[in-house]
Amino acid sequence: MNSILYLIPALGIVGLVAMAIKSAWVNKQDAGEANMQELAGYIANGAMAFLRAEWKILAYFAVIAAILLGWSGTLVEDSHPIIAVAFLIGAVLSAFAGYIGMKIATKANVRTTHAARTSLAQALKVSFTGGSVMGIGVAGLAVLGLGGLFIVFFNFFVPEGAAITGVEMKRAIEVLAGFSLGAESIALFARVGGGIYTKAADVGADLVGKVEAGIPEDDVRNPATIADNVGDNVGDVAGMGADLFGSYVATILATMVLGQEIDASSDNFGGMSPILLPMLIAGLGLIFSIVGTWFVRIKNETDSVQRALNIGNWSSIVLTAIASYFAVQYLLPETLVHRGVTFTSTNVYMAIIVGLVVGTLMSMITEYYTAMGKRPVLSIIKQSGTGHATNIIGGLSVGMESTVLPIIVLAGGIIASYYFAGLYGVAIAAAGMMATTAMQLAIDAFGPIADNAGGIAEMSQLPAEVRHRTDNLDAVGNTTAATGKGFAIASAALTSLALFAAFVGISGITAIDIYKAPVLAGLFVGGMIPFIFSSLAIAAVGRAAMDMVNEVRRQFKEIPGIMEYKSKPEYEKCVAISTKASIREMIAPGAIALITPVVVGFIFGPEVLGGMLAGVTVSGVLMGMFQSNAGGAWDNAKKSFEKGVQINGQTFYKKSEPHKASVTGDTVGDPFKDTSGPSMNILIKLTSIVALIIAPHISEKEHASAEKNEVAKPKIEAVSQVSAEN
Amino acid sequence: MNSILYLIPALGIVGLVAMAIKSAWVNKQDAGEANMQELAGYIANGAMAFLRAEWKILAYFAVIAAILLGWSGTLVEDSHPIIAVAFLIGAVLSAFAGYIGMKIATKANVRTTHAARTSLAQALKVSFTGGSVMGIGVAGLAVLGLGGLFIVFFNFFVPEGAAITGVEMKRAIEVLAGFSLGAESIALFARVGGGIYTKAADVGADLVGKVEAGIPEDDVRNPATIADNVGDNVGDVAGMGADLFGSYVATILATMVLGQEIDASSDNFGGMSPILLPMLIAGLGLIFSIVGTWFVRIKNETDSVQRALNIGNWSSIVLTAIASYFAVQYLLPETLVHRGVTFTSTNVYMAIIVGLVVGTLMSMITEYYTAMGKRPVLSIIKQSGTGHATNIIGGLSVGMESTVLPIIVLAGGIIASYYFAGLYGVAIAAAGMMATTAMQLAIDAFGPIADNAGGIAEMSQLPAEVRHRTDNLDAVGNTTAATGKGFAIASAALTSLALFAAFVGISGITAIDIYKAPVLAGLFVGGMIPFIFSSLAIAAVGRAAMDMVNEVRRQFKEIPGIMEYKSKPEYEKCVAISTKASIREMIAPGAIALITPVVVGFIFGPEVLGGMLAGVTVSGVLMGMFQSNAGGAWDNAKKSFEKGVQINGQTFYKKSEPHKASVTGDTVGDPFKDTSGPSMNILIKLTSIVALIIAPHISEKEHASAEKNEVAKPKIEAVSQVSAEN
Repeated sequence: MNSILYLIPALGIVGLVAMAIKSAWVNKQDAGEANMQELAGYIANGAMAFLRAEWKILAYFAVIAAILLGWSGTLVEDSHPIIAVAFLIGAVLSAFAGYIGMKIATKANVRTTHAARTSLAQALKVSFTGGSVMGIGVAGLAVLGLGGLFIVFFNFFVPEGAAITGVEMKRAIEVLAGFSLGAESIALFARVGGGIYTKAADVGADLVGKVEAGIPEDDVRNPATIADNVGDNVGDVAGMGADLFGSYVATILATMVLGQEIDASSDNFGGMSPILLPMLIAGLGLIFSIVGTWFVRIKNETDSVQRALNIGNWSSIVLTAIASYFAVQYLLPETLVHRGVTFTSTNVYMAIIVGLVVGTLMSMITEYYTAMGKRPVLSIIKQSGTGHATNIIGGLSVGMESTVLPIIVLAGGIIASYYFAGLYGVAIAAAGMMATTAMQLAIDAFGPIADNAGGIAEMSQLPAEVRHRTDNLDAVGNTTAATGKGFAIASAALTSLALFAAFVGISGITAIDIYKAPVLAGLFVGGMIPFIFSSLAIAAVGRAAMDMVNEVRRQFKEIPGIMEYKSKPEYEKCVAISTKASIREMIAPGAIALITPVVVGFIFGPEVLGGMLAGVTVSGVLMGMFQSNAGGAWDNAKKSFEKGVQINGQTFYKKSEPHKASVTGDTVGDPFKDTSGPSMNILIKLTSIVALIIAPHISEKEHASAEKNEVAKPKIEAVSQVSAEN
Repeated sequence: MNSILYLIPALGIVGLVAMAIKSAWVNKQDAGEANMQELAGYIANGAMAFLRAEWKILAYFAVIAAILLGWSGTLVEDSHPIIAVAFLIGAVLSAFAGYIGMKIATKANVRTTHAARTSLAQALKVSFTGGSVMGIGVAGLAVLGLGGLFIVFFNFFVPEGAAITGVEMKRAIEVLAGFSLGAESIALFARVGGGIYTKAADVGADLVGKVEAGIPEDDVRNPATIADNVGDNVGDVAGMGADLFGSYVATILATMVLGQEIDASSDNFGGMSPILLPMLIAGLGLIFSIVGTWFVRIKNETDSVQRALNIGNWSSIVLTAIASYFAVQYLLPETLVHRGVTFTSTNVYMAIIVGLVVGTLMSMITEYYTAMGKRPVLSIIKQSGTGHATNIIGGLSVGMESTVLPIIVLAGGIIASYYFAGLYGVAIAAAGMMATTAMQLAIDAFGPIADNAGGIAEMSQLPAEVRHRTDNLDAVGNTTAATGKGFAIASAALTSLALFAAFVGISGITAIDIYKAPVLAGLFVGGMIPFIFSSLAIAAVGRAAMDMVNEVRRQFKEIPGIMEYKSKPEYEKCVAISTKASIREMIAPGAIALITPVVVGFIFGPEVLGGMLAGVTVSGVLMGMFQSNAGGAWDNAKKSFEKGVQINGQTFYKKSEPHKASVTGDTVGDPFKDTSGPSMNILIKLTSIVALIIAPHISEKEHASAEKNEVAKPKIEAVSQVSAEN
């Protein structure tokens, strides 16, 4: 047993070493001339300034939350004050995950620009290696953090010879949930804050620069251009890093909570195999993601970048799937029983495969709805022909429609993984899907690096071929960003269901019956939360963008000579506007996500809270898909005009009336796809984790909770006996 | 007992007589000069042409559905083939309700125009009397239809001396549910078809007429203007009439289904009092709505129209509330027990009051979010200052935010009414809220009549003061339309919960446990349905509007002299485009609503179907509010420019850049607020009714259903005994 237990953090350390090597390689690359480095320096400083401002606020939050958590840990048997430490470690590591990504991205961007002077192959190598540093670093931190803390808490809480299904182990994992809570709460603030930052800058820069002043994107004369490029780093890189760190940890943890309920004492690992499995799969996924990165390469200018990424991605998925088979057979006993459902170890493996299939299908469907040249984007282009309004109607309609197939796939995945291995199957399916997070994140993060590289090329007025190469990478990055979101939301849905199940177990209720009126009321309130959350997020972008517009207009008017390159715009003023707005505006949505479950849980009890969780999950998944896909489709409808589009037999290019309509759609889509949409998956997981953390408390509040526990516990033991007899 | 039983349809007949008198009065009014009458004739003919085309398709649907229903009625004990007849009667009455409204509206419009030459008071009198004809007619038909059919089925199915809680009475009400199904399915098609018609014409007319050709709204030179005015009648009048007829019937029926489960044999009505109560309240509400119409009057040009409507509305609500108290005390025994919850008759009355309070609060909140001069609309105006995109972002954000307070009110209402009188309390709250439907509908329907009157005034080139008066009425109509929608969605939510509870009772399940994976999968699928429904509806409007745009452009180009009033546009071509498109496009969304519950129910059984219903309800309520309120707010943001608005200290009027941005928002909002948004409340009720109708069938499909019924039934009897002992 011990060997596997210590293998897991060791795999995490391997990941971090790999990250360090790749990071050193990126740093060694040539960063180009002084003016390029100067611009890159502005971006790096802006990004650091944002992170510092964000951390300052979050530090207050983290300390207060930790004190509350620690105090609450003294109140019930199932928890412990040390949960505060777990929480802080989770919070710090999540912030650090974002920092790693941001740091490497602001080094890799200018090096990619310089590499793009040589060849596409070299530019891909630098930008993708930058992305890999982030991906491998995030996954490595998660595996090391979870695996390491688990060893600590296991040794601290669980005395020699105690049953894995007993209260001591339950307490160890409940305390570990604090780690996940820390990670996920920082992730939410980072995603929302970063999302507001990047889109406020982007929308503001576009509205005045492109539309009013008529200068191209990323033009050095635009005062908001540095803020825009900083935004790519703090939103699309640091925000996403914290996000996926949180998701990854939550998924593994949810599986561990359910695994703890399984009596697997017939295994060779002291009954711990169902708990170890998700961590081991994560570790294996990390290693095979590193292997996968070796396959991402092209030789010629005309080679397909998308194909290279796909080969890398598929390699890591297939290798992880194969390795998981052996891991499952090695760890798990032949039959397991979870909450009355009996299944074999092979069934568990089938559930993992279901997770991989669901993830793949989700990515494919998302790609269909957001890719150029396919029916959805073409329909938006056509509707741009009759103006702004029909473009918007078209995009909203596409976004709403795009929920259908993913929901059917997801519902099928839930039913299939449940069929194979009960609720543990649903959780392990999510864990399987998330196993190659390192690779997913590498692919995701390379996009904004390439985007930044293009920005630096434009601002430094490098030859067109450089920009052409970075544009090639950037276009691929747009597609991978969209598919990554589809993947993230699917895994979030499965994870939430697993957390949901874990919550039911710990809170001591036996059902969440929506036919009871107060539970249905909870479902309504839960369903509303993604709406108010999205409303706050997109309104924040709208407001901050207006501030940005006014500042840029002011600079054009008051600083003479900007347009003639004679004087420099005050970039730092625009950076400050985005920073201030995003920090201020991230608080309300974040607070809603954290406080609502606590209030509902303590006032109305666990069953109503369960209804609320279901409402948040369903509505959040739908709103997430709707907004992300609508935004992606609008973006690519606009991009299609660059090469010219056909509407009713006529060809239209940039600056035509239909193109202007498509720019409106893209601008509306910006906060949809990069602020509120991708926050949805953190929102639903965070709400569930908060519920899980307060579960022992509200369980005690319930009337007759003592009897309930009496009833519930013997059941599990009875089931365990059945399993033992098999 | 019999006196009350026969009193109910008698109240319905009183309503229909009142309608006939008011209708005759409207017909007696002067319709003005020949050219006004000619234009009104075009509108009336166009509306009739649409209804005829719609009825033709719906007749096929109704006959096939009736045959299926009749056949299914032979299969189980709880139903009967005669359900087919109930279905057809419901369908025909629903269509007839729409017809009454349309017929009177196309008479009242031109008479209102003529009356507006004299005074505002006279114009209000004619238009509101027109609206009252529709409101009273719809409610009268519903009360007569339900009350009459109930007498027929009661005598047919329930033998002398049979217990009200027995299977015979259950069958009688299950068959009566066929009436509701017929009404609600026609309502859905009418609402969606009418909604597509009116917005395709409206958007099409605006895009070419106002934006491209620069002629005012309702200009006689615009080929789409007649179609636009027809749209007001088929969508906002006929569609809404069928809609509210269906809602009204569904609400009463749901309460009756739950009432049947209550053993009230200690009352003086053979135990029927809980079944009779919702019908009696509806009858009383109808009478006091008629009384309320007498208070709607103004004297001077400067009197507030809104205030007059409010006085009428409040009179009918307060009178109905007082009368309900006596009805409750007269009918119900002192204590009742429903599914284990014991409550007094006074508690039932409290639940009714909860319903009235919820309805009032919902209307007030909706008004806040959509009214001119309040924070939400002002924020959209401000965001119009930076262009189309920020206007759209602002409206979407307002729409999402506008779900918060209504959901909290709704959740509170569910919990409070449940607290007072269990699930019967939730149902009766909805019934109380809907009691004054006649008045609500009169207020709602007067708006489109005034709108049409304004159109005719413009087209006939009458003096400005006439248009000014009709505009005054129209503006009030916009507010009442928005508040009416808030009211409708709240009642739909409560009704759905009641139908939901009725479904659980009949399908023989004891819980809908979302913690079970397949049930959660059902919740996801249900949540998705309002998204695909909305997507289809708004995409249909977009497509039909594009056809309209192309036709209008063609006429301007190919028919010389239109712009100089020398030749007449081909109005009928535009009417035909809207008619054809709406009939074609209403089928897919309608089919989804009808077929999905059947498929899910038969494949996955009643509990998963229950999960799906909950998903449809929650997501439908949210999407309905979001879309209706966003649309209303955009509309009034645009209207605010007529009197000039302040943005950053500058004043902007019509034709300014911010105004153009606000027109984009209004156009996007059109299908939101008049096609997909208001369809949501029919969608959620229809899905629940379909589930209720198939409940006896899928209940039998369940494994071990026999034992389940065994378990469930004695419970109710045991409870009844407790109640008897009290």
